[in-house]
Amino acid sequence: MVTTLTTAGARAVARCEELARPPYSDSAEGLTRTWLSPAFHAAQKRVAEWMAEAGMTVRRDPATNLIGRYEGAVPGGPALVIGSHLDSVRNAGHYDGPLGIMLGIEAVAALAAAGTRLPFAIEVHAYGDEEGSRFPAAMLTSRAVAGTLAPGMLDITDRDGVQLADLVDTVAFPAAARAPGEVIAYLEAHIEQGPVLEAEGLAVGTVTGIAAQLRFACEVVGTAGHAGTTAMALRRDAVAGLAEMVLAAEDVARAGPADLVATVGVIEAAPGAANVISGRAGFTLDVRAGLAATRDAAAEAILSRCHAIAERRGLAFAARPVHDLPPAPCDPALLHLLDAATAAAGHRPFRLVSGAGHDAMILAALCPTAMLFIRCRGGVSHNPAEHVEPADAEAALQVMSGFIQRLGATS
Amino acid sequence: MVTTLTTAGARAVARCEELARPPYSDSAEGLTRTWLSPAFHAAQKRVAEWMAEAGMTVRRDPATNLIGRYEGAVPGGPALVIGSHLDSVRNAGHYDGPLGIMLGIEAVAALAAAGTRLPFAIEVHAYGDEEGSRFPAAMLTSRAVAGTLAPGMLDITDRDGVQLADLVDTVAFPAAARAPGEVIAYLEAHIEQGPVLEAEGLAVGTVTGIAAQLRFACEVVGTAGHAGTTAMALRRDAVAGLAEMVLAAEDVARAGPADLVATVGVIEAAPGAANVISGRAGFTLDVRAGLAATRDAAAEAILSRCHAIAERRGLAFAARPVHDLPPAPCDPALLHLLDAATAAAGHRPFRLVSGAGHDAMILAALCPTAMLFIRCRGGVSHNPAEHVEPADAEAALQVMSGFIQRLGATS
Repeated sequence: MVTTLTTAGARAVARCEELARPPYSDSAEGLTRTWLSPAFHAAQKRVAEWMAEAGMTVRRDPATNLIGRYEGAVPGGPALVIGSHLDSVRNAGHYDGPLGIMLGIEAVAALAAAGTRLPFAIEVHAYGDEEGSRFPAAMLTSRAVAGTLAPGMLDITDRDGVQLADLVDTVAFPAAARAPGEVIAYLEAHIEQGPVLEAEGLAVGTVTGIAAQLRFACEVVGTAGHAGTTAMALRRDAVAGLAEMVLAAEDVARAGPADLVATVGVIEAAPGAANVISGRAGFTLDVRAGLAATRDAAAEAILSRCHAIAERRGLAFAARPVHDLPPAPCDPALLHLLDAATAAAGHRPFRLVSGAGHDAMILAALCPTAMLFIRCRGGVSHNPAEHVEPADAEAALQVMSGFIQRLGATS
Repeated sequence: MVTTLTTAGARAVARCEELARPPYSDSAEGLTRTWLSPAFHAAQKRVAEWMAEAGMTVRRDPATNLIGRYEGAVPGGPALVIGSHLDSVRNAGHYDGPLGIMLGIEAVAALAAAGTRLPFAIEVHAYGDEEGSRFPAAMLTSRAVAGTLAPGMLDITDRDGVQLADLVDTVAFPAAARAPGEVIAYLEAHIEQGPVLEAEGLAVGTVTGIAAQLRFACEVVGTAGHAGTTAMALRRDAVAGLAEMVLAAEDVARAGPADLVATVGVIEAAPGAANVISGRAGFTLDVRAGLAATRDAAAEAILSRCHAIAERRGLAFAARPVHDLPPAPCDPALLHLLDAATAAAGHRPFRLVSGAGHDAMILAALCPTAMLFIRCRGGVSHNPAEHVEPADAEAALQVMSGFIQRLGATS
């Protein structure tokens, strides 16, 4: 197949495709590129070439991040950072992460080709472990840049028994931290990984922030019994209780604002036999919203309904919190710049919350952040079927360039 | 502990306790007595002694059943068969099966002690494989007596690779079949294995028949998605669909007659991760009622509601039938005799459907059948906590003796 690359956005997409195959994938079938694997190092090398071609100086920081820098009008000044991640989940899609890096490179390439120097430098950051698919931790490399690594975070071992300390200099690692004065803002373009933009008929959307996320492990305890010999009125069926709780979670989330979501993704019943009424059932409850208050009120409403359901049915109910991530709002002034750039590029400005976590969430501790979501087909992600239209990538690139221009005008 | 056995019913219970320990259990901890194991053979030997002490002649039929016979007024005539099973599930209760045999022996012992001869013989049958916990088949030995073994049913192998043909003469096995003229009726006393009698405050109940049973494997297909990035309105969540279907099954069963039950005992979701909306969910649906028509109407109503739920939610739904057992009604005339004997023993006659299968279901092909359920604590069965009060066993014995007397009076 010969693809004619009519736009820089299409080239960014094509480069993501190139990175989806060996030697840039750990596996011959499907894309898997875990942090610090041979494929990861090969991909860094290839991306470094593209960064250099685009007019950047390239280095690897002590936290294994690849950093390309395009100086501003005054060399050595503070930078706008455009970043995303180069690692992937197992059997991944081709755009989740790399596309944001490729678009950053294209934005710089356009500036360099035009000889434009801005009042600030631009750095393109390719982070290492956003997905957390190798070590039992995630976003350590962007944490290092933001200066928010906590003690002990690097004392980790992968599933093959390899310690992180065997692969990198964990003592030097935190030296990747940037001073607040060095970074004026962070911009990340990323596929939406959801169906909202597609449903709205839009190529791109302005992310207002990353949702606050609460997760619970829930347990329902009833009485196991013979499916044939226990009359309906005498049952204390844990699965029936679970079913009502799943619908309560859905009901509360549906009644809330559009960015409120609640998900039961894991369900299980014990003993789990067709002819036995379940004595125990377990499920996970994941609640997210742009505002922690919205999320917390929803979680409280759901759990309160679960307790009421359990009481009415003679069941015991317990919910154990396993996860509590605060929201990471994007910077209001930067949101306006993104909206303006979107309108100028001929698209309807549209704002949405990111339900998923991103490196931008981490960088928010260092500087004002902005995120631009790009439509992906069917909202499918973390899946080889992940797909982005080159035209949408080009739209994102135009919005990013307009954003950079506007940021320059205000600096 | 010294137990004073004040009644024959209490002795029947005590004998079940004796049979729950080695050498009558395959395991030292808990009771497991699988068909044709050393413990099974040891238990047959002990039961044969009790049968002989009670005044019976004892033999083992070609299908490994232990048969004690107490002749009637005219030796060699047709018999009332009182039976149940001597095998158990793994980590079993002590009464499920043996109690019915022990009570049969006590009924005969009382007749023999009084020198009473009836117009018919009484045979006590101890069947071998009601539970099906060793070979992938069940009730083969009562099927042999009823003459309903189908070709190939004996070509089976247990989980250790032992063929049934290695243990018994499978050619001679079907010769255990009894001619209809040899058996005038079948009576089985069995613990209820459910909580209905306890809820009614009754020691015993008359079983109207064994429920018709339908089982389906159901599948719900939606679209997997990111739990954080897919707005509620855009989801096609298989677990939410499953939850609504579970409640529909419960709702239909609750609205039906008291003997109608519907159970979802197995639930599963794929991919089954806390942060992923399920693209697929599976569950089992087990529907039982005394009448096949009741059961079929309920199953149809449930599945029709499942289809409507799926359609409304944009899900696919399929239900595959995996099990269809016809009902086995007990004989109306024998039911009246049991009720009369219950009233005469000072208890309120009460009728209920058996949701579980029993050897009586098999014997129904040979002769009119009757079943008497005995209250068990909390309805708990297939569990070491299974418990029967000696007084309830004595009540059952009195009802059985009254039944035998009345059957004799009508013969």
